[in-house]
Amino acid sequence: MSRPDPSVLIERTVAGIHPLDQSAIAAARQRLDQLTKPPGSLGRLEDLAAHIAGITGNPMPRVTERVVVTCAGDHGVTAEGVSAYPAAVTPQMVYNFVRGGAAINVLARRAGARVVVADLGVDHDFPPDLPIVHAKVGRGTANVAQGPAMSREQAQQAVAAGIVIVERELNSRPSSAPREGTYLFATGDMGIGNTTASSAVAAAITGAAPAEVTGRGTGIDDDTWQRKVAVIGRALEVNRPNPADGLDVLAKVGGYEIGGIAGVILGAAAHRCPIVIDGFISGAGALIAAALCPAVRDSLIAAHTGAEPGHRIILRHLGLTPLLALDLRLGEGTGAALALPLIDSALAILHEMATFAEAGVSGRETGPE
Amino acid sequence: MSRPDPSVLIERTVAGIHPLDQSAIAAARQRLDQLTKPPGSLGRLEDLAAHIAGITGNPMPRVTERVVVTCAGDHGVTAEGVSAYPAAVTPQMVYNFVRGGAAINVLARRAGARVVVADLGVDHDFPPDLPIVHAKVGRGTANVAQGPAMSREQAQQAVAAGIVIVERELNSRPSSAPREGTYLFATGDMGIGNTTASSAVAAAITGAAPAEVTGRGTGIDDDTWQRKVAVIGRALEVNRPNPADGLDVLAKVGGYEIGGIAGVILGAAAHRCPIVIDGFISGAGALIAAALCPAVRDSLIAAHTGAEPGHRIILRHLGLTPLLALDLRLGEGTGAALALPLIDSALAILHEMATFAEAGVSGRETGPE
Repeated sequence: MSRPDPSVLIERTVAGIHPLDQSAIAAARQRLDQLTKPPGSLGRLEDLAAHIAGITGNPMPRVTERVVVTCAGDHGVTAEGVSAYPAAVTPQMVYNFVRGGAAINVLARRAGARVVVADLGVDHDFPPDLPIVHAKVGRGTANVAQGPAMSREQAQQAVAAGIVIVERELNSRPSSAPREGTYLFATGDMGIGNTTASSAVAAAITGAAPAEVTGRGTGIDDDTWQRKVAVIGRALEVNRPNPADGLDVLAKVGGYEIGGIAGVILGAAAHRCPIVIDGFISGAGALIAAALCPAVRDSLIAAHTGAEPGHRIILRHLGLTPLLALDLRLGEGTGAALALPLIDSALAILHEMATFAEAGVSGRETGPE
Repeated sequence: MSRPDPSVLIERTVAGIHPLDQSAIAAARQRLDQLTKPPGSLGRLEDLAAHIAGITGNPMPRVTERVVVTCAGDHGVTAEGVSAYPAAVTPQMVYNFVRGGAAINVLARRAGARVVVADLGVDHDFPPDLPIVHAKVGRGTANVAQGPAMSREQAQQAVAAGIVIVERELNSRPSSAPREGTYLFATGDMGIGNTTASSAVAAAITGAAPAEVTGRGTGIDDDTWQRKVAVIGRALEVNRPNPADGLDVLAKVGGYEIGGIAGVILGAAAHRCPIVIDGFISGAGALIAAALCPAVRDSLIAAHTGAEPGHRIILRHLGLTPLLALDLRLGEGTGAALALPLIDSALAILHEMATFAEAGVSGRETGPE
């Protein structure tokens, strides 16, 4: 199948991203206010329902297909000793995802979501028949402490691969799927060393200092943390990424899976699908996506704020308020999967609750009491 | 069926409440650390799994039956003009619960929970065949601004009724239910005026000033809020509840449904069932339960922190950290129902994830890197 040139696909996708549908939001809010509860008393659940109405352009949206896209990639910066785990864990975990034994498999199953695992740049040759998306752009990035992670063309390829994952999913929609429903995409990541790349992306785009956006990753000690901060500082000095150019930041200090996540976000937004972003690495992908197309932020739902200090800084930069705060620091899409039941609940409220009129319940007292 | 005297039932129940099973917690933690994720990386989800192991005394607990007990009652203090809705809404909403049109019905259904609606003291005669628990202690409390809400005997009856609801549920366990599973109870409330009673309970037990624990309830304006604070102050002055005596606080400034909630909590804890407490009113019930038996706090899971300012003060007093923060201010058990999927997910992690050994995934690097 012939694919358009990556840069053309990205441009076309960005051009297809529109602002929220304000009339759908108003209609959803109007219905919410007629339901048998004090107006606004379901708090953020009501905001969530109205938000999804705005994203999808449907005042009574249903989310019938949910897909967690877990993008994997390796990082040359692991040579600097910034992680608690060996790089071999990245492909091992990909096999674990395929067998269904990882946290994201368990949590997605609970939430009624499918997990699509995509190799964007793992340093390992997977068998071609392994049921993953084979979209390898390179065998791990180069060491960002010494030079760019990848070329600009590779950055475009990674983002385009994410867009293609979304389009393939939408085109493969089973004919039995309810036509009025919509897809929801959630992002996830796997890649030893990718908190280092994400911290560098966060520092480059938000302007925060490396120490502010650097955390303990999978669990490093004080010495390793200090080395990690120094490595991120060096990566920014050596590469001087341009914060206004998302592809430049991705190429110079990012990662293949971070580019894939940015692509999934852009592709889903262009098709008016809500996107639930997981943790710190997904946040870095969202920063890249928003640098390429600021309007994409409207389609994002922040699942949670995790243990990484930079996560909060990313969400603030994107103007997003997380749904959960559970001190997660796993990635894979786990936080996003945990947020899905809240989304289901918000939409169920819209569809299933009785109105004051239907239930014969009195409204607020009016006039002087 | 003959029931024991309420005070005997309460005493027997309190005597049956034991501390957490530390060996079950340790065994659950040990398993969590062998799963294919960095230790502790699922944050509060892991704490939740270990906590439920400790409550149930089972290192691999399953929660197969979930029951939301929504206790309803009316409040004489509504005569003071403290609510945005007329008292008639309490019975109207009970009918709405029975028909399945309220928020708690929708959210409990989503979470795989049954809703048990209990009339502890609604000012309305329900038909005897209405499928609710008929446990009316009185037709609404007396106006706490002028004297006690109820007698001490009525307070005991309300708490005992909550215990009986739990015991009846446990005895009615279907024979087809998996024997290794456990019940989980969630609390909820319905009662126009009950944020006023709950604020008074919170002020009496935590020592906070009325203005600190008084919020907007279902949505009152500034003038009504000031009147509400003054009414709570007057209720405390007139009644002088003894903070060390849970039944005295309940009788003097509480409510029938608040007593019922306290009873559900005590009854569930005595049977080693986890209890998910909903919002501000459930928190007031938990304060009463903890005043009667401090050890009951170990069995509590705080679903959320809501919009009522006193909610946070109650949770701090009980030493509980809420799972969600969604600005809910509805009650009914809605916040508790929204937290149930997190509990399911926590237990699914324990049961369904692969271990490092099973998955052939490398552990942490050891020694100097």
